[in-house]
Amino acid sequence: MTTSPQPWSQRFESALHPAIARFNASIGFDIRLIEYDLTGSQAHARMLGKTGIIPAAEAEQLVAGLEQIRQEYRRGEFQPGIDAEDVHFAVERRLTELIGDVGKKLHTGRSRNDQVGTDTRLYLREQVRLIQDQLRQWQRTLLDLAEPHIETLIPGYTHLQRAQPLSLAHHLLAYVEMAQRDWQRLDQLYERVNVSPLGSGALAGTTFPIDRHYSAELLNFGGVYRNSLDGVSDRDFAIEFLCAASLIMVHLSRLAEEVILWASEEFAFVKLTDSCATGSSIMPQKKNPDVPELVRGKTGRVFGHLQGMLVLMKGLPLAYNKDLQEDKEALFDGVDTVSACLEAMTILMAEGLTFRGDRLAVAVESDFANATDVADYLAGKGIPFREAYNLVGQVVKTCLAQGKILKELSLEEWQALHPKFDADIYAAIAPRQVVAARNSFGGTGFEQVRQAIAVARQAIS
Amino acid sequence: MTTSPQPWSQRFESALHPAIARFNASIGFDIRLIEYDLTGSQAHARMLGKTGIIPAAEAEQLVAGLEQIRQEYRRGEFQPGIDAEDVHFAVERRLTELIGDVGKKLHTGRSRNDQVGTDTRLYLREQVRLIQDQLRQWQRTLLDLAEPHIETLIPGYTHLQRAQPLSLAHHLLAYVEMAQRDWQRLDQLYERVNVSPLGSGALAGTTFPIDRHYSAELLNFGGVYRNSLDGVSDRDFAIEFLCAASLIMVHLSRLAEEVILWASEEFAFVKLTDSCATGSSIMPQKKNPDVPELVRGKTGRVFGHLQGMLVLMKGLPLAYNKDLQEDKEALFDGVDTVSACLEAMTILMAEGLTFRGDRLAVAVESDFANATDVADYLAGKGIPFREAYNLVGQVVKTCLAQGKILKELSLEEWQALHPKFDADIYAAIAPRQVVAARNSFGGTGFEQVRQAIAVARQAIS
Amino acid sequence: MTTSPQPWSQRFESALHPAIARFNASIGFDIRLIEYDLTGSQAHARMLGKTGIIPAAEAEQLVAGLEQIRQEYRRGEFQPGIDAEDVHFAVERRLTELIGDVGKKLHTGRSRNDQVGTDTRLYLREQVRLIQDQLRQWQRTLLDLAEPHIETLIPGYTHLQRAQPLSLAHHLLAYVEMAQRDWQRLDQLYERVNVSPLGSGALAGTTFPIDRHYSAELLNFGGVYRNSLDGVSDRDFAIEFLCAASLIMVHLSRLAEEVILWASEEFAFVKLTDSCATGSSIMPQKKNPDVPELVRGKTGRVFGHLQGMLVLMKGLPLAYNKDLQEDKEALFDGVDTVSACLEAMTILMAEGLTFRGDRLAVAVESDFANATDVADYLAGKGIPFREAYNLVGQVVKTCLAQGKILKELSLEEWQALHPKFDADIYAAIAPRQVVAARNSFGGTGFEQVRQAIAVARQAIS
Amino acid sequence: MTTSPQPWSQRFESALHPAIARFNASIGFDIRLIEYDLTGSQAHARMLGKTGIIPAAEAEQLVAGLEQIRQEYRRGEFQPGIDAEDVHFAVERRLTELIGDVGKKLHTGRSRNDQVGTDTRLYLREQVRLIQDQLRQWQRTLLDLAEPHIETLIPGYTHLQRAQPLSLAHHLLAYVEMAQRDWQRLDQLYERVNVSPLGSGALAGTTFPIDRHYSAELLNFGGVYRNSLDGVSDRDFAIEFLCAASLIMVHLSRLAEEVILWASEEFAFVKLTDSCATGSSIMPQKKNPDVPELVRGKTGRVFGHLQGMLVLMKGLPLAYNKDLQEDKEALFDGVDTVSACLEAMTILMAEGLTFRGDRLAVAVESDFANATDVADYLAGKGIPFREAYNLVGQVVKTCLAQGKILKELSLEEWQALHPKFDADIYAAIAPRQVVAARNSFGGTGFEQVRQAIAVARQAIS
Repeated sequence: MTTSPQPWSQRFESALHPAIARFNASIGFDIRLIEYDLTGSQAHARMLGKTGIIPAAEAEQLVAGLEQIRQEYRRGEFQPGIDAEDVHFAVERRLTELIGDVGKKLHTGRSRNDQVGTDTRLYLREQVRLIQDQLRQWQRTLLDLAEPHIETLIPGYTHLQRAQPLSLAHHLLAYVEMAQRDWQRLDQLYERVNVSPLGSGALAGTTFPIDRHYSAELLNFGGVYRNSLDGVSDRDFAIEFLCAASLIMVHLSRLAEEVILWASEEFAFVKLTDSCATGSSIMPQKKNPDVPELVRGKTGRVFGHLQGMLVLMKGLPLAYNKDLQEDKEALFDGVDTVSACLEAMTILMAEGLTFRGDRLAVAVESDFANATDVADYLAGKGIPFREAYNLVGQVVKTCLAQGKILKELSLEEWQALHPKFDADIYAAIAPRQVVAARNSFGGTGFEQVRQAIAVARQAIS
Repeated sequence: MTTSPQPWSQRFESALHPAIARFNASIGFDIRLIEYDLTGSQAHARMLGKTGIIPAAEAEQLVAGLEQIRQEYRRGEFQPGIDAEDVHFAVERRLTELIGDVGKKLHTGRSRNDQVGTDTRLYLREQVRLIQDQLRQWQRTLLDLAEPHIETLIPGYTHLQRAQPLSLAHHLLAYVEMAQRDWQRLDQLYERVNVSPLGSGALAGTTFPIDRHYSAELLNFGGVYRNSLDGVSDRDFAIEFLCAASLIMVHLSRLAEEVILWASEEFAFVKLTDSCATGSSIMPQKKNPDVPELVRGKTGRVFGHLQGMLVLMKGLPLAYNKDLQEDKEALFDGVDTVSACLEAMTILMAEGLTFRGDRLAVAVESDFANATDVADYLAGKGIPFREAYNLVGQVVKTCLAQGKILKELSLEEWQALHPKFDADIYAAIAPRQVVAARNSFGGTGFEQVRQAIAVARQAIS
Repeated sequence: MTTSPQPWSQRFESALHPAIARFNASIGFDIRLIEYDLTGSQAHARMLGKTGIIPAAEAEQLVAGLEQIRQEYRRGEFQPGIDAEDVHFAVERRLTELIGDVGKKLHTGRSRNDQVGTDTRLYLREQVRLIQDQLRQWQRTLLDLAEPHIETLIPGYTHLQRAQPLSLAHHLLAYVEMAQRDWQRLDQLYERVNVSPLGSGALAGTTFPIDRHYSAELLNFGGVYRNSLDGVSDRDFAIEFLCAASLIMVHLSRLAEEVILWASEEFAFVKLTDSCATGSSIMPQKKNPDVPELVRGKTGRVFGHLQGMLVLMKGLPLAYNKDLQEDKEALFDGVDTVSACLEAMTILMAEGLTFRGDRLAVAVESDFANATDVADYLAGKGIPFREAYNLVGQVVKTCLAQGKILKELSLEEWQALHPKFDADIYAAIAPRQVVAARNSFGGTGFEQVRQAIAVARQAIS
Repeated sequence: MTTSPQPWSQRFESALHPAIARFNASIGFDIRLIEYDLTGSQAHARMLGKTGIIPAAEAEQLVAGLEQIRQEYRRGEFQPGIDAEDVHFAVERRLTELIGDVGKKLHTGRSRNDQVGTDTRLYLREQVRLIQDQLRQWQRTLLDLAEPHIETLIPGYTHLQRAQPLSLAHHLLAYVEMAQRDWQRLDQLYERVNVSPLGSGALAGTTFPIDRHYSAELLNFGGVYRNSLDGVSDRDFAIEFLCAASLIMVHLSRLAEEVILWASEEFAFVKLTDSCATGSSIMPQKKNPDVPELVRGKTGRVFGHLQGMLVLMKGLPLAYNKDLQEDKEALFDGVDTVSACLEAMTILMAEGLTFRGDRLAVAVESDFANATDVADYLAGKGIPFREAYNLVGQVVKTCLAQGKILKELSLEEWQALHPKFDADIYAAIAPRQVVAARNSFGGTGFEQVRQAIAVARQAIS
């Protein structure tokens, strides 16, 4: 039995510089993959037994030994240190301690290159499904919040200027749609994560009569890499995930920004509950929207990981290069961050805020957000839209000069502006009617919103 | 008829500061969308006619007028300047010049916000299909190059150290696989590009009884946005495209790096033809691999656009914000860059280089890239892999000390190392055999490679 | 005289593929460097004459010929096409047309590699100075706006929650400080831009007895590169500029965000003038803050260029690689963008908005932003700060429950809370006093602000 | 004494959701700032005593209590958990446990916003100096390696094609120059890190008569922030550091790439020692250049942090926002990464590789890297450079066709090409002479290199 620290050290005469050993070691973070590594190795061992590359009994010994390591790890007894270099060697060494020389057969027909690729995919595919579930929970939370607010009005903005009043539910549903795309993207990239590189060897495949489809099947992979070089050097799946994660963060950051605005004294559209807000160390009146701020702040972090991983891969010659070791921390942190942000935003929307109906009602009454409706009113009576639009521009200017809003104009004033105006103009520009009237498909009209909620419930069930 | 420069200027009393007008104007780059804008407007006009929002005859006038602008544009007669602000106003103004007041009805039930979103999607979906076609051409070129090189050997590398010899075709096929994922990603994101926001209005839908499904159908969209706020503020599709484009660039940059290496005097695995290389202004002997260098260099540019677009969207409150105007230049340049790089790399691989069989043959004969095969040879005779591996490490060390390579050891020397060695060791470590023996699925064995080519041809046809 | 298209084509037997010629050509964007190229070449020619490498008379011919090209270019007569490959060859070719074989001597002791590096630095150093000037103008504009607003109060925010009232001037001065750092950074990086690579040759220097210090002096460079390899391959200066530019954009984007908030109906702290705002195509009431939105939107663009350039340089072996050609467009656009944004924001703050004193006055009266002052009041009377703070937290809670703000508490109520309260509490919590009292160095106290303006005026003059 | 978990919880009626408490807590990473926090608090306490804001004796108690916490921390006895929220509260709470109510006075005239800013700057300024020292060590290592290799020749490359032979020392000196700029950048940004925000309060300064210059002086800050809003919200210094760090990584990655190339079998310019290389798990012959690969791989990580931090800051309204909490992990990891990479590369160049003189000697003899010298030879005899260049292009083409290199041409062949050739052409194109002749300032000529080493030694001493 070898006493050398690393399985590869026979060709080497002197040891690694200690600082370099630390620099190279990945055990500090790849220990997180240990359960996936054990599972992957068990499948590999079973395949070796099934194909007769090693005796079936030895395969069983390997599987059992690996299971024992899993139990040791779960009980906190197996804690490999920096001298283990990486989780793969740590496991192989422990295995040989446990079951003797048979342990040395585990690595037959395999390389660390395809092994770590397998581990990473097993890890990520699980995380993708968990995040998909979180997205569903996120959507349900938004729908639950939207449902009682179909007829609650809220100003709609473009350029952060009040544009047209909206159903609050309609506003929230926009985020359900974004999450739906996020879910779909994850679902599609899942099929590119869920591919087995196991058996690609170091880069070229192997001389042993392995059965890659069998080990893939044991691990529930949807397929196997068709090219061994590609199998060991592909990190598209991690990048694609970080892009999808970045988009989730974009969406969360947009709502986060809105909640921050809504919670300000100026908007005051929501009241933060105590469960999701914190105070100041010196300003006793403060109640700060920490959750959406942190979510907004963490957005750049995920973008940064995406960029870091792209940079990592740029211009790398085939096949495996040590650079690839750097894929893990970014990926782990990307997963953790997006998952934590989804959880926090879900809690925030579920119990961290309440909408202030009083403030919203005042807001939608007191501006020119119904001006388009005046133009539409005229266009509906045959005036060319651009002409109607121009006329209303004049009306608004007049009102502003007089300190009035539209509903305060008398019918005479309206008719002085254009003879087509009639008493029904008042109904046409009342906020509820303004919202209700936008009944085009996908619009904010209450009828549309009600249907949209039903459709969304259906889509995510 | 208004003489004001902008359709929105009725409320305004004084003009834009000229520097600000320049700063705001997008006509300098969004003119590129003009044909999509005209097509989109024609569909909108037809829908207005069909639904009776405007008389059918007027709809026809609008369609014809728009067609006339298209012809003027193609003939170079329609060249809107900076005073047009953007392509949409430029077209609407010209339309009104051409067909009079009816032109002012075009914008009924529509906003620039859904209009520009429609234009951008029409543009991008076309580009996605073109790039998918380029990827197919790229794959065909690689396959055509691979086919005659199935039995050409090339050193395979990990860590840029020679690891195991490969079939050159196998190496090239790795890039066919990457392109296959690229193609698939584009195909999947296409469905998220090909969705109509038309009729979302400024943000809330419209009061006119428009038929969004009809205009979407006229434009061959696969669906319509289900939420108007999402419809005008979603730019996921552009980001997702830039991520897919970044991955294409990652893949091209990897092969680019390899070609640069292969073209060096040290590797000398390829000879550059005159059609894709350039010289130096002062070193008459130089023949530079400009194409792969530029491709590698342009990689960061696309990553930068992806990041720029993500940053653009971070934390934007709903719905439309002027920031979104900044989506276009990055998207256009991303499309142009990835398309130009695919074209250039395709030409490079098709006619810009030839492989130097003489050099490759020497390369695969003269190193220890067959050492794993010695370990596998022993493992095949029952020696535990890790033990076999350690033994071979000793052999290599001995050889290095003696200035020998493995095939130069005598049978006695082999057997002195381990009694299981026999005369068949020489056949087992000959490069051709080393390659042929890696016949596991997806491996570099010739049989595998031949099948892989057939499968790939099938997949892309 | 050669008829070949490129000066380097003698070794080559066949021409570039036309698509590759287009792909390689930089003339489309490096034409922008022409005047710097001419200036650099004139200095080089003079140096060749002075050192006797070529006869003085020939040097004069070269200088005159180059000057003639400059005039032709300015008159629009010299417009090299794609066949010129790059601006350097375009100039050299024209020069030989103008002055015959002497033109062929211009490139003695020089390479395109050091030549383009010289051009780029000449360009950038000029732009850096221009942007420094713009920053000064920006600071002056802010100071001019601040001066009359020293005693105008505005809510100060943390977490976008009202925290403590501020002097509006103090708020604006924060941006003067940021610009001061921006200016200083540019000033420091200028010395790393302003270094001459001319004479570094292709990579190794030259065999000609050139005088690099002389040509550097003619071009007003502050020094010369001490290592020729570094001279031709260094792009730190461009990256460093893009980082400084990114920070300028960060600062502008922060104020942009604030202006967007302030211009909303909810804040309504500013009124946009017509000179910097635009309207909507369908909502006649809209007045949109396009300028700050676009500035915010363009921020990601500059970040993207910074990243693109970093990616470009990563892992490039020495010395010159064609990848470096990709430095220009990102740099040019970075310069243009930051310059345009500084100009636009300067106009915006100078004439694009006015502060609404009425709204600001109401805002600072109606919240708990003076709560810290109550805690400070008690701490000033010997109560430990954290205890005082906790007490005030209770007070605020009580007020909120009763719908009161602090100034509405009676003296009895105050004293019931803590016996140390006295009638002077009312003065202590009046907004003007709250602001005035923060008279620590750098604080918002009026006295401090007045001094800060004076110091800033001094610093930028 | 309060029993509430957080100092700010008096206004709050119910507790934070546990998941949100975890999400908000920074103690997991800001514990790293504890010693800086204690130092900063001690200075603040001394200032409070000196100015009479608290009695001098109480100030002493605070200082001593804080010192006691420092000792507890160093002994591993003070380990605050997640309930502490952040390091600042953890310390304040422990302090009050230790010294009673006086501990509650520590926070007088201060906020967490200026406190954390102070801590972060104290941390970073120390790290900047450490990295500057590492850069000096890096430069010394390169110089020590260069010195014995002044007359060792190595091919010089452009486009990774052999261009002109170089002194190996000259090549290494290019990296000394880059590190010099890196050092200078750090030195300049140090002055923007080393500025005290302490006393800026939450955002507006404080009502207490604090002496910010005194606490800054105690902490050896070079100055104080002149504007309190800027003081609490500025993160330029962290971004600027990450940009400088990114440039260091660019430089290290370039040499890393070269070492990877040099260590390949094809180049074989260096031999890796066992102290910095590792083996393969299945290929016993492998010796992998892990160190430069990891350094190259870690480059993207630092770029990613830079991008993440820029994104973080974009568009944040003044003053402090919770988003800023996200500055720390990126900064810490950026510092750690660049520091570890500098250390690893220094070890690599000091003891991880040796140059193979035999291989280098062969390399510089066997190509056309002396072709420019033929052109220069002719130009030196009065032939216009471009004409000489074209002639040599023809010569090279002829040689290639005949399988010769230049030194193999007979004098007759030379003179047939141009009558100006003489027997001294052979000396002119010998590699040593080719290198020696590039004696222009900064060139690779031995004389220049010798001087450059002396100058560099001087500059860094």
